[in-house]
Amino acid sequence: QHLIKIYSSSRTPWIDASCLTWEGQQFQGKAAIVEKLSSLPFQKIQHSITAQDHQPTPDSCNISMVVGQLKADEDPIMGFHQMFLLKNINDAWVCTNDMLRLALHNFG
Amino acid sequence: QHLIKIYSSSRTPWIDASCLTWEGQQFQGKAAIVEKLSSLPFQKIQHSITAQDHQPTPDSCNISMVVGQLKADEDPIMGFHQMFLLKNINDAWVCTNDMLRLALHNFG
Repeated sequence: QHLIKIYSSSRTPWIDASCLTWEGQQFQGKAAIVEKLSSLPFQKIQHSITAQDHQPTPDSCNISMVVGQLKADEDPIMGFHQMFLLKNINDAWVCTNDMLRLALHNFG
Repeated sequence: QHLIKIYSSSRTPWIDASCLTWEGQQFQGKAAIVEKLSSLPFQKIQHSITAQDHQPTPDSCNISMVVGQLKADEDPIMGFHQMFLLKNINDAWVCTNDMLRLALHNFG
């Protein structure tokens, strides 16, 4: 829960080594990631987390995998899954890796 | 593809720092993980990967997120999602982190 709050805080903690894969599209670096996320074509989004798992890594990072449902504007509700890796650098948590897929790929 | 082959090779490369979260149950260390995986209650399992994403991490690991469908024995086909982190130690890839969830959690 705590990690998810850090991750979804308004000052999203990306660095230049960060990678985002959004529905198979790859973006690297803070500027490219912020540009992608701010260009998503919906006005409002709601989400509900139905399962979450967290693990420490040998390099003192934290990995989370989150499963849930989201609703963008008036679109139908869709399942999604997301993983992200948080690393502590200079006493602050940054997101170095993030991957998101909609659940429709389970039924492809 | 290459990483998935390494991961699913018969000599599964766990170390004592490895963590597995299997449908929310946590296991740490090679012995506990191998015991869990060898005690799964099916005789045969088939799987089909429908989407896969891979990223490098700042600590020279590789993260993968895999989405697909599996069929255990004569059970109905189920969606699943899995992430794993592979780290290169002494010129060999080991799996330090693994999380699996069935897709039913998207619809909880």
